[in-house]
Amino acid sequence: MSIKVSVVGASGYVGGEILRILAQHPHAEIVSLTSRQYAGEYVHKAHPNMKGIISARFTGDDPVKASANADVVFLALPHKASVKVVPKLIETGIRIIDMSADFRLKTPESYVRWYGYEHPNPELLEKFVYGLPELHREELKGAKYVSAPGCMASASIIGLAPLVKKYTPSSPIIVDAKIGSSGAGGKPSPSTHFSERYGVIRPYKPTGHRHTAEIEQELRFVSGKNIGVAMSAHAVNQVRGILTTSHFITDTGTKLPDVWKAYRDFYPSEPFVRFMMDKTGIYRFPDPKVVIGSNFADIGFDIDPYINRVVVLTAIDNLLKGAAGSAVQSMNLMFGFNEREGLNMAALHPV
Amino acid sequence: MSIKVSVVGASGYVGGEILRILAQHPHAEIVSLTSRQYAGEYVHKAHPNMKGIISARFTGDDPVKASANADVVFLALPHKASVKVVPKLIETGIRIIDMSADFRLKTPESYVRWYGYEHPNPELLEKFVYGLPELHREELKGAKYVSAPGCMASASIIGLAPLVKKYTPSSPIIVDAKIGSSGAGGKPSPSTHFSERYGVIRPYKPTGHRHTAEIEQELRFVSGKNIGVAMSAHAVNQVRGILTTSHFITDTGTKLPDVWKAYRDFYPSEPFVRFMMDKTGIYRFPDPKVVIGSNFADIGFDIDPYINRVVVLTAIDNLLKGAAGSAVQSMNLMFGFNEREGLNMAALHPV
Amino acid sequence: MSIKVSVVGASGYVGGEILRILAQHPHAEIVSLTSRQYAGEYVHKAHPNMKGIISARFTGDDPVKASANADVVFLALPHKASVKVVPKLIETGIRIIDMSADFRLKTPESYVRWYGYEHPNPELLEKFVYGLPELHREELKGAKYVSAPGCMASASIIGLAPLVKKYTPSSPIIVDAKIGSSGAGGKPSPSTHFSERYGVIRPYKPTGHRHTAEIEQELRFVSGKNIGVAMSAHAVNQVRGILTTSHFITDTGTKLPDVWKAYRDFYPSEPFVRFMMDKTGIYRFPDPKVVIGSNFADIGFDIDPYINRVVVLTAIDNLLKGAAGSAVQSMNLMFGFNEREGLNMAALHPV
Amino acid sequence: MSIKVSVVGASGYVGGEILRILAQHPHAEIVSLTSRQYAGEYVHKAHPNMKGIISARFTGDDPVKASANADVVFLALPHKASVKVVPKLIETGIRIIDMSADFRLKTPESYVRWYGYEHPNPELLEKFVYGLPELHREELKGAKYVSAPGCMASASIIGLAPLVKKYTPSSPIIVDAKIGSSGAGGKPSPSTHFSERYGVIRPYKPTGHRHTAEIEQELRFVSGKNIGVAMSAHAVNQVRGILTTSHFITDTGTKLPDVWKAYRDFYPSEPFVRFMMDKTGIYRFPDPKVVIGSNFADIGFDIDPYINRVVVLTAIDNLLKGAAGSAVQSMNLMFGFNEREGLNMAALHPV
Repeated sequence: MSIKVSVVGASGYVGGEILRILAQHPHAEIVSLTSRQYAGEYVHKAHPNMKGIISARFTGDDPVKASANADVVFLALPHKASVKVVPKLIETGIRIIDMSADFRLKTPESYVRWYGYEHPNPELLEKFVYGLPELHREELKGAKYVSAPGCMASASIIGLAPLVKKYTPSSPIIVDAKIGSSGAGGKPSPSTHFSERYGVIRPYKPTGHRHTAEIEQELRFVSGKNIGVAMSAHAVNQVRGILTTSHFITDTGTKLPDVWKAYRDFYPSEPFVRFMMDKTGIYRFPDPKVVIGSNFADIGFDIDPYINRVVVLTAIDNLLKGAAGSAVQSMNLMFGFNEREGLNMAALHPV
Repeated sequence: MSIKVSVVGASGYVGGEILRILAQHPHAEIVSLTSRQYAGEYVHKAHPNMKGIISARFTGDDPVKASANADVVFLALPHKASVKVVPKLIETGIRIIDMSADFRLKTPESYVRWYGYEHPNPELLEKFVYGLPELHREELKGAKYVSAPGCMASASIIGLAPLVKKYTPSSPIIVDAKIGSSGAGGKPSPSTHFSERYGVIRPYKPTGHRHTAEIEQELRFVSGKNIGVAMSAHAVNQVRGILTTSHFITDTGTKLPDVWKAYRDFYPSEPFVRFMMDKTGIYRFPDPKVVIGSNFADIGFDIDPYINRVVVLTAIDNLLKGAAGSAVQSMNLMFGFNEREGLNMAALHPV
Repeated sequence: MSIKVSVVGASGYVGGEILRILAQHPHAEIVSLTSRQYAGEYVHKAHPNMKGIISARFTGDDPVKASANADVVFLALPHKASVKVVPKLIETGIRIIDMSADFRLKTPESYVRWYGYEHPNPELLEKFVYGLPELHREELKGAKYVSAPGCMASASIIGLAPLVKKYTPSSPIIVDAKIGSSGAGGKPSPSTHFSERYGVIRPYKPTGHRHTAEIEQELRFVSGKNIGVAMSAHAVNQVRGILTTSHFITDTGTKLPDVWKAYRDFYPSEPFVRFMMDKTGIYRFPDPKVVIGSNFADIGFDIDPYINRVVVLTAIDNLLKGAAGSAVQSMNLMFGFNEREGLNMAALHPV
Repeated sequence: MSIKVSVVGASGYVGGEILRILAQHPHAEIVSLTSRQYAGEYVHKAHPNMKGIISARFTGDDPVKASANADVVFLALPHKASVKVVPKLIETGIRIIDMSADFRLKTPESYVRWYGYEHPNPELLEKFVYGLPELHREELKGAKYVSAPGCMASASIIGLAPLVKKYTPSSPIIVDAKIGSSGAGGKPSPSTHFSERYGVIRPYKPTGHRHTAEIEQELRFVSGKNIGVAMSAHAVNQVRGILTTSHFITDTGTKLPDVWKAYRDFYPSEPFVRFMMDKTGIYRFPDPKVVIGSNFADIGFDIDPYINRVVVLTAIDNLLKGAAGSAVQSMNLMFGFNEREGLNMAALHPV
């Protein structure tokens, strides 16, 4: 059995990664891929890595036309662009996986606070499943509409969910995030000019990062409590990869075996969660370096001996587990495929 | 049908890449992997990317014992180590793919000149096929013993073969090579210490690089002529990737359509050769950036309007097309598998 | 007037940076420089940048002999090595600037807790001034013995001192530090091997970093209170530079103008503190990229609108303001020179 | 004695580097600095490294007005912009150092061939001295008009001049150049977008690079012969630095002591030329890594034992010896200052 897939906005970095995965997927066939900027051009013009792999061209078709013969459409559009397209697509009966933030939050108030606009279709927010299989697997099975999580939100939530389920922090959880340049997309700007971007450790968003909204929402989903999250985002000197360092302070302290148990209980057999905890060697803790190119989320933690702090570390490839990888994993669940299908590639090492 | 594979010296970078490819190969099963340094350890201790993919441990078995149940053995050993092992393995009847330089050159004199030693088994040199499918496909089909080419030799030869078949240079071909750090292996040293290695454009071998011997040998094979090659090797600021810039001067000059024809005739349908020649865009010429993680060799060329020079550019991932990738491609030919099997992954982009 | 300077352990990265600064210092003359590893070799053998600048050779002299004719000695030795040498040097009457951790902490108990050893000369701890001019300027004027601060401690303390003087945190201050490879010194190891170190975001010390001790000590000095500090240290993909992101949570909240005032009051005219706070542009906040090669400490802060958090950012060059730069600044104060002498170079940009 | 300096086009990378040098120059005072893009802004808005060093603002004044009170003007303008300004500036009697290519070539025909335009003021070409002190020191003393060399031309010429004076190549000299991103200036574009530029070894100009014209001109000046130069330019993974690898083939061969003599005779006491030739260690040959931030040109060479080839290596910081550094060195000569003034800083290491 094979499904027909349409990719809208396929010339961006997330779109390209969806193409790369689907090109190897045994049960998916790309029937349409669109790009306004690259309409009429070969795929390899935007994604030179795909030369010799995909010989198709981008079309400039509107999303509804482009998806006419597809079973599912991936919308890899900018924020606020998806929301204009989704209602029309819903009318056609197609399944949708939206990569933007437009359907991640469950309440219209959250969009006002975090994105600064009135959501035009608040009635649709409840229809979308938050596409993180580690938390929403059962809902994803057979889901019609999926909203793929934000990249830094994915890392933060996957790392913190087991902890907040068992423990309550006594002060806001600090999420100190480090991310490569690909998270900022493919459009040139002064801040992404190589001579200015190379070698930085740049705190581009010390407070108020929008992914905070998703993290708080999902931690509430897991714990049943309102848990404050205080995020700071830093751009670092690479293209791919996210490391989130989450500082979790409790009143009571925690013990390593108990924390271990919390994680093992929460993730008894996740296909893409690995525990990176070793007593020796270079890779004792998670490091994005060894997930690049794979769909893994590597988790590690450490306990502060003098202060009641748990440090949770999560490493992902922002374009895979942080975007296209989780999205295809969700697609697999939607259509009843093996969850690993198309995603079982190892990371490159060294790279 | 599935073959049984043994990997000797599996903890090095080339060994790890062989494991990574074979873990996805539909017709190969790894039955044994050895490492003296990591004997008894899990594979992921040396190759953290393989955690969750391969759960085996390295053994410290000697090559013959390790390969007892295998159909083919990959020897990922240092130079001069393979030659000690190969005669014993040959006695057992197993097929061999040797990653070292010990069986690449066809004459014992070449070992004296380029490697500074008397080859202990000169009678075996003729038994090995030089494992570059682009030049030796027919010999590789059914071959028992294969010697995998050097990484910079692979790039140089693939790029230059079509040209030397058609044209004769009037002075030695200059091969100016740029390579990432992984070509130097995994052993720490002052020259690979990050603080000293980062940001370099380091001419580590301006003259006398040993891969010159292979290049001259194979260009002679293709052209029937003795063609001088003058190589200079530079270490540059990345982990993976080779670009060779070959400067080819003729007395008569060349015309672009003729050169194009030479390349198209030579490579009418190579599965892993791509022509990267575009009039516009960022990737008008080959760049290792867009082959990293794939088995492609990207070729491009340009003709100097005022001097009778053809500049030939070849980009490869040194651990794939420059080592493990070509080796598995050769294995596929040896056993009659589809040549692309296990190797049809796209490069990552951007990365 | 010119002083005579001896540099012991001059072949390391900190030693090299001291040489580089002193070579341009109008009032300092290097009379002796020692290295066990490089004894007899030219300075440029360890520090190739100094070729054509310093033509001297390292000697293998013991520190007392090497410093016989000097007014001051810089000890750029490993931890636990300085403490063996200092008592003998003190007997000679020479002034000492120690770059190790051996005299940074004021109580012997701290050495037991953080460094795991009984300090052999606890009576000397009080004799050393903590060499951070921003906090100890008056003590440094005319001081005989100075202990140069740790690199990440320098960044953390300079950023947090104004804040803790005015506000009391309601939970431990989280210091999330990112540092380049040069902080780990010049000795090759598996973790600093380029192929393994390149591209990392590696949490090498999530808890228990020794610099915590200095930070708590100095924040107590400034605030008169015991303030808990919870540090996590990450190795990132560059050679030089530190960014500390300090998350400071209060019960009451803070207002931007008040925080601004705290900083301006604390640093009314520091020669090497810059406030990097801009509403527009790429460099709105501190980024080590624009301090590399200079002695500046760039400070910025941001206030979380929903959680009572101040995020304090400090960027330094770990080898300058984090080591050799502060040390020479301290030397200037000890000898009554203009504090900026030898240190007024701008950072490189772009680099 | 101190001169008054005007910098026109001071917000670009070359302009910024001129400012950085002059800020430390004992005999130069910046009286005016202009930028159309940054008119009215503080210098640190374009050059964040200069915060706390230069507190001036850019003006939008036209070059003549801006230079009214200056003794000399640096024109850091794009190609074809200088040529419009220079005739007017000449009328005012001011001395000029032009950083563009507009006055580098001595014949109008060269501009047609290499730059594709008719030079509007061919009569001025002879008035400009080619600002490479290593070749034109005597002319520069007291010169009124100086044209600063191209960055890759500087490296190539400095490395090849001694060789072509003594030897005649039997085929065109191949100059294989590698350069960091800062050579491409500060303007964002798809090819300089970090995600696309990071990790490249990109042959952006395999043939026909314009600096070829200068190199051939200056090698003719030195040797009295027409010597063909065939250049290929590659963008590599760093911001600063150039390495040129020049492959020089003779009919007769060369011997190392003779080549050494050629270099020593040509450069008996150049203040900024270093020979990087060592038998051991990491830095046996020139590497831009150890010149970054300095005005040095490091030269090395190697002789091919089997082919009559000399490989000449030159490493410079493209913004210093390749632009602003040589320009200030020329200024020093023009005004009779010590040639080293303002330029005796060491490179950073490690960085």
